Amino acid sequence: MSVKIITISRQFGSGGRTIGKALAEKLNFEYYDREIIDRIAGETGFSKDYVAANSEYAPGKSVFSYSFEAAATPGVMNGMTTADYLYSVQRKKVLEIANSGKKCIIVGRCADYILKEFDDVFNVFIYADLEFRKNRIVQTYGESDTKPEKRVIDKDKKRAANYKHFTDREWGRPVNYDICLNSGYLGIDKCVEIISDIALGK
Amino acid sequence: MSVKIITISRQFGSGGRTIGKALAEKLNFEYYDREIIDRIAGETGFSKDYVAANSEYAPGKSVFSYSFEAAATPGVMNGMTTADYLYSVQRKKVLEIANSGKKCIIVGRCADYILKEFDDVFNVFIYADLEFRKNRIVQTYGESDTKPEKRVIDKDKKRAANYKHFTDREWGRPVNYDICLNSGYLGIDKCVEIISDIALGK
Repeated sequence: MSVKIITISRQFGSGGRTIGKALAEKLNFEYYDREIIDRIAGETGFSKDYVAANSEYAPGKSVFSYSFEAAATPGVMNGMTTADYLYSVQRKKVLEIANSGKKCIIVGRCADYILKEFDDVFNVFIYADLEFRKNRIVQTYGESDTKPEKRVIDKDKKRAANYKHFTDREWGRPVNYDICLNSGYLGIDKCVEIISDIALGK
Repeated sequence: MSVKIITISRQFGSGGRTIGKALAEKLNFEYYDREIIDRIAGETGFSKDYVAANSEYAPGKSVFSYSFEAAATPGVMNGMTTADYLYSVQRKKVLEIANSGKKCIIVGRCADYILKEFDDVFNVFIYADLEFRKNRIVQTYGESDTKPEKRVIDKDKKRAANYKHFTDREWGRPVNYDICLNSGYLGIDKCVEIISDIALGK
């Protein structure tokens, strides 16, 4: 199998972004996650902070609340909700990247679903047990007023709801991916090695 | 990490047993799947055919139907249902094997759950898309009166119900396993290589 694009879906705190960045460096692939948001921000006129707050990373809000907010602002974005509009722009960007032929890693953004008709795409899901992820988010993002367990569970609930809303598929079901790696058990480095070996056809 | 026991859970038709057997040979581990049923048959006085028919491989029956049958036969097996009794014997055997210290592969039998408190256990889930599995069961087991798609889906429903009944966990959820491999994408040989490399600490 030939691999030109690696999509990485990941539980919060599993190290999926770290794995994606390490892979991009090792394989000399381009890397996209927040960068995509930056580009969207530039293109649509949304500020970077606005996009970040209204995209997957929104703290304490579900995608549904954006729908209500957008519904309360008639005429905005041709009748689309904020979340739907952001998704449509993200989807377009992901497709543009894929069609450019550049080898790349795309973290999140429902890229596995958006690129499901493309050849040469390798879909990865990174997960880990709760204890590992709790510790990792505190190390990576620091403490907050909310307990780590709640932060992890809430974020994943949002990711699952987001994915379901836009793809009508269950987030984190193995059949959506080509491999699912427990980074808590395998370690970040081993995950990078397994994925890069597959991408390189080793 | 040290690996002494590899448990393999698998979707029907994904090649999980083939992978298990290849791993046993490559790693010089003992291999258990039907062999466990054979031993149970010897110990409990159930015939091999009876155990096979009333265990996971039962065609066209759910575990619940056995409960009704057993309930209709008062006094059988200290009030346990047939399915529960078989599971208790299987569980005992799996624990005996694990406690023996022999390095081994155990396919199915809820071994990932039964051995969840043991160190040195590596839990694998093998899956593949429906098309791959349909083709594989026809190649492996031949045609039957039932369409391949229905055979695959029915069998997995039974496995999921069985697993849920005995473990109260969702079968095929990544978090129950250390790695989940799509054999349809990766190929049987690559799955064997990835698992054996991890088991050998490579």
